Amino acid sequence: VTDRRRAAVLGAGGYIGQEFARMLADHPYFDPVLLVSGDRTGGRRLEEVWHLAEEVPAALRSQRLVAATPKAVAAEADIAFSALPGGVAVPVESALSRLGVAVFSNASDHRADPGRPLLIPEVNPEHLGILPRGSRSAPIITNPNCSATGLAIALKPIVRPLDPRTVHVATYQALSGAGFPGVASLSIADNVVPFIAGEEEKLARETPQLLGSPRGRRIVPAAITIHPQCARVGVREGHLEAVTVLARRRPTLAEITSAWRSFDPLAGLALPSAPHPPIALRAEADRPQPLRDRWAGEGRARGMQVVLGRVRWTPPTLRFFLLSHNAVRGGAGGSVLNAELAEAKGILGARPSRGR
Amino acid sequence: VTDRRRAAVLGAGGYIGQEFARMLADHPYFDPVLLVSGDRTGGRRLEEVWHLAEEVPAALRSQRLVAATPKAVAAEADIAFSALPGGVAVPVESALSRLGVAVFSNASDHRADPGRPLLIPEVNPEHLGILPRGSRSAPIITNPNCSATGLAIALKPIVRPLDPRTVHVATYQALSGAGFPGVASLSIADNVVPFIAGEEEKLARETPQLLGSPRGRRIVPAAITIHPQCARVGVREGHLEAVTVLARRRPTLAEITSAWRSFDPLAGLALPSAPHPPIALRAEADRPQPLRDRWAGEGRARGMQVVLGRVRWTPPTLRFFLLSHNAVRGGAGGSVLNAELAEAKGILGARPSRGR
Amino acid sequence: VTDRRRAAVLGAGGYIGQEFARMLADHPYFDPVLLVSGDRTGGRRLEEVWHLAEEVPAALRSQRLVAATPKAVAAEADIAFSALPGGVAVPVESALSRLGVAVFSNASDHRADPGRPLLIPEVNPEHLGILPRGSRSAPIITNPNCSATGLAIALKPIVRPLDPRTVHVATYQALSGAGFPGVASLSIADNVVPFIAGEEEKLARETPQLLGSPRGRRIVPAAITIHPQCARVGVREGHLEAVTVLARRRPTLAEITSAWRSFDPLAGLALPSAPHPPIALRAEADRPQPLRDRWAGEGRARGMQVVLGRVRWTPPTLRFFLLSHNAVRGGAGGSVLNAELAEAKGILGARPSRGR
Amino acid sequence: VTDRRRAAVLGAGGYIGQEFARMLADHPYFDPVLLVSGDRTGGRRLEEVWHLAEEVPAALRSQRLVAATPKAVAAEADIAFSALPGGVAVPVESALSRLGVAVFSNASDHRADPGRPLLIPEVNPEHLGILPRGSRSAPIITNPNCSATGLAIALKPIVRPLDPRTVHVATYQALSGAGFPGVASLSIADNVVPFIAGEEEKLARETPQLLGSPRGRRIVPAAITIHPQCARVGVREGHLEAVTVLARRRPTLAEITSAWRSFDPLAGLALPSAPHPPIALRAEADRPQPLRDRWAGEGRARGMQVVLGRVRWTPPTLRFFLLSHNAVRGGAGGSVLNAELAEAKGILGARPSRGR
Repeated sequence: VTDRRRAAVLGAGGYIGQEFARMLADHPYFDPVLLVSGDRTGGRRLEEVWHLAEEVPAALRSQRLVAATPKAVAAEADIAFSALPGGVAVPVESALSRLGVAVFSNASDHRADPGRPLLIPEVNPEHLGILPRGSRSAPIITNPNCSATGLAIALKPIVRPLDPRTVHVATYQALSGAGFPGVASLSIADNVVPFIAGEEEKLARETPQLLGSPRGRRIVPAAITIHPQCARVGVREGHLEAVTVLARRRPTLAEITSAWRSFDPLAGLALPSAPHPPIALRAEADRPQPLRDRWAGEGRARGMQVVLGRVRWTPPTLRFFLLSHNAVRGGAGGSVLNAELAEAKGILGARPSRGR
Repeated sequence: VTDRRRAAVLGAGGYIGQEFARMLADHPYFDPVLLVSGDRTGGRRLEEVWHLAEEVPAALRSQRLVAATPKAVAAEADIAFSALPGGVAVPVESALSRLGVAVFSNASDHRADPGRPLLIPEVNPEHLGILPRGSRSAPIITNPNCSATGLAIALKPIVRPLDPRTVHVATYQALSGAGFPGVASLSIADNVVPFIAGEEEKLARETPQLLGSPRGRRIVPAAITIHPQCARVGVREGHLEAVTVLARRRPTLAEITSAWRSFDPLAGLALPSAPHPPIALRAEADRPQPLRDRWAGEGRARGMQVVLGRVRWTPPTLRFFLLSHNAVRGGAGGSVLNAELAEAKGILGARPSRGR
Repeated sequence: VTDRRRAAVLGAGGYIGQEFARMLADHPYFDPVLLVSGDRTGGRRLEEVWHLAEEVPAALRSQRLVAATPKAVAAEADIAFSALPGGVAVPVESALSRLGVAVFSNASDHRADPGRPLLIPEVNPEHLGILPRGSRSAPIITNPNCSATGLAIALKPIVRPLDPRTVHVATYQALSGAGFPGVASLSIADNVVPFIAGEEEKLARETPQLLGSPRGRRIVPAAITIHPQCARVGVREGHLEAVTVLARRRPTLAEITSAWRSFDPLAGLALPSAPHPPIALRAEADRPQPLRDRWAGEGRARGMQVVLGRVRWTPPTLRFFLLSHNAVRGGAGGSVLNAELAEAKGILGARPSRGR
Repeated sequence: VTDRRRAAVLGAGGYIGQEFARMLADHPYFDPVLLVSGDRTGGRRLEEVWHLAEEVPAALRSQRLVAATPKAVAAEADIAFSALPGGVAVPVESALSRLGVAVFSNASDHRADPGRPLLIPEVNPEHLGILPRGSRSAPIITNPNCSATGLAIALKPIVRPLDPRTVHVATYQALSGAGFPGVASLSIADNVVPFIAGEEEKLARETPQLLGSPRGRRIVPAAITIHPQCARVGVREGHLEAVTVLARRRPTLAEITSAWRSFDPLAGLALPSAPHPPIALRAEADRPQPLRDRWAGEGRARGMQVVLGRVRWTPPTLRFFLLSHNAVRGGAGGSVLNAELAEAKGILGARPSRGR
């Protein structure tokens, strides 16, 4: 009998941590046996501290959040999904790695570490190659910033036909991107806030890295300059981005849309949370919209599809809008998909067998 | 005794028409003797059909909206402020012009007419020079699109130091930009709509025209390409714009901010609705914001100042956010200021004397 | 082979009409073969005119809305679900009835007609008894006003233990209650509007009727006076109501909550859209909430459960909040459940058999 | 030369504290010389920590918030306006009182203290009579809960004609009632929260006390039972309340509205922040509304008027909606008006004379 791997969710009292709990509750590969929370939610049942608008998953409703040292986590879990805040994440995740627990992290702390893959399965699976072989530590694999995730997926298929030189991107980012309690209602009601600390820097750094190439044990970023302008809007979920690409090549519009439509690099793998195709291209005049498109994707891949629309090609300038679910595709779902890819590639080792 | 000019407000049942009524109620030059409305609001008192969050002006509260032909308007008014919708505006405004009534129009219909000045007093007062001399018709002077207004004012002082080649602009436009009833609440609650019909075209066409130069009786647009991406957000008033300028020259950041700070071309004229300076540059990390900055400007110029912030200069790329009140600076207030400039320049003829 | 009954949706261009389409797309009893719309949406595909935040059902996505006379509807459908607006509904629904098409209507027009059952299956199934027997016309069965629906369901189980004399109810009603385009965003952004035309009258009239008893061919309303105060809030879906009941009897609080918890009069019938139990009683300090509770109910009954909370019993005054989905339980879903009950009771006649 | 009294604002880093600063910046009686803040805003300039949508007052923009002991406050101020949070307020305010500094407090802590007047100048000025005479301590005078304030003002004129027995009130309370950061945007976007900790208890206790009568040194509450149901809505400012009064007497509707319209007990006193009349009765079908009515009142009394509407009288049941600005009339403005009344009544002692 082959069982699901025992998984710990780190930071289960927060918004992304609970998105992990929601997506893992009935996951075919991973079993969330441990909901870890160091703060004042420790000891309470998941339903008591639930922040998401979606219903708390029945299987985990009464499970209690616990405070746990890395050692205690390692005693009960084979794999960890981390929604730890920046600053806290590095020592905990590193300790887990040394204890043999593979970590799939949403934290930004490790993203700049050249030895840690910053991974989107559809974009740069070959970056897993920088993981040291024969290491006694388990891997730490991070998913990128929520805004960078959607942008990198949208750009990946058009890198070859367009050869982008510069990308201007203005964001309309959702409230849940700041977690809970996050943005004060008095800051955003009847307002837009044109600033999110650190966000533009992350978009500018992570996007070229995601589109870059491994050379030995490190990644050479793609030669694309990102000029971001980031703003917060009063929308619950779903980051919208206005993207303008300055291209070096001049394909036809049909070649561009065809590149997007035919893009499905994970088609051969049966990863449970992978949307097929990963990009949906809408023809309507007024899409994508956060309200209508944030949950794009079927079944377990719900909320994992990136939706594009309003494509305008005035060579050498390509403009479009994109929408991706910040807390799913750009958060917990990104790391879950990363773990599924790692499982499929054998990086996690043999599945545990805990039969009678 | 010199009186105020008798003014008609055309389209007084709508949002911009009522903004005209609010700004003119106690105006030193113009007296809104006639509130014209062709639709079902005709015959009702202004307070009964009032849409604005601000209180209805006491002086006009009980004034009745009336249906009126151009001839009837010309019998009672010397000047008209028009908030007529596109399509309806041209025949009415043209008829008034022929009847000797100067028209200051917010309608987009005449903006592409090469003989009609598209005017922002701080940006292109010299465009008034294209008005035919000795004409028996009164002038029709239009103010530009609400998004183009803020952009043109922000760009004007930096045209010389930066010599912009291309401008990328993503907008976060307020609900009132669509008038009343305008955007359905179900379309925008918990949402952003990345499309406003005709808006990107107007931004792309009007901005270079505003920054252009008169040659004889026509305007040669400036050699600047605008790439707009327009979206509607759930904010009552105040258009926010994320602006990225690709420059041909490389001044210092201090030279750029100094160009903005010292810009006050109307300093010499005592126009009642002119803000001094027309641009406010905020140093805070998270400004401008619609909620906090839309009413910038003092006294009669309240809502007329354009607020800039988050200036980032990575040559040759300049990024900033701007905020301008769409219904005041970009709507009724724009035309009121145009009329004040026309008065100051003597274009409206002698002020009426109606003393005993 | 027994087929689903062929169903027409009347008013399929509107919000409730589309909620009908969504709930019927894969319904086990009814097959929405005809989407009728008399307005300018006629001829367009359902996906082109879709208003709901939920995805358009795949089975109906490309089905075209059609204009159709009652005769044309009767030629293709056995049953009609009506979301026709007040005023329009009576002649169309009556004509269909005469043509033998049973009508399940969300329109308010027929509700005051003493021969037309105003039905909530859990509350007053015995009211079906007022339908004339042996009539050649098919029945017209209406569901009540969206606010009255939740209130009547919440009151039904406590009528006996409390014997309510007066009910004070203040509502917090969602935007979708006004349909599309409905409430203008400028009317409701950063606002509450304490008025909904006709709503208080409907609540006051329909609630006692729903709780009343049939005497012969008419209904004697219950001796309960409703004092409503209705307001619109900026929430997409889900009507919240603050209910205060003045009781004639004084049971214990446990008896009251037990009356609610044990209430499930449809337990014996396997109606697809019936929630079991129809009332969910939440113990949290801050529930029910529109965002979190509007979709209560499992499977096909999603959005059909009424959620109660904050129960305070200071005899003789009982206070609580209730939440019910206005467009599902209080709209399309109410009529779908009514049709399911009619089917189960044999009122619709034998199921069609259209096998080879 | 008679100067303004030197005033301290306690809790100047918070929302109500800043409302105090805004209202006192150019007050004719009081000069806010000291902005006290114990938290991390200490040492920063007021403009740096400003939370309100209104512009920071020019006179105080650069004034620094300071941490200060009661003794230090007493050295520089004659009077204190307190926006201290519950729990913190009692020891600080009591110490100031002992040091001879009169305190006008928005904190709820002292409200239940039978020796501390809970005051609304238009409602219960005679309650000032419970202040001990000849005390060496300065008085501590509190303003009531924000929801109780509007309710007590609306009820006061109709107590005599109606003799109310019971009042049912459901509230629609604004975000600013919770201060800053207060309500998380994710808690309230597209939502209503039917719970505010302690609010119903305050409404039920304070309203009868405000309408009560002094007997010796204590207040006998009025014999009116309040049944509140309190909810938070996504509105920035302005508490709306749906009020239902069960009356013992049956005047005509005209007598009721006349009682409201003629109510102006402060007409003889020239208190700067007193609105005349304190109640505005609107005839429109859909008023009052938070957006349109929260700033009712002229000049310094802006935001101090309570607006009533939708009056329905079905004897013995009177229903209406009321709107009052929670942070002005129900917060800082309430205490400022209390201080103005105290000044007019000579309770504060002689005005300081600091002229040459």
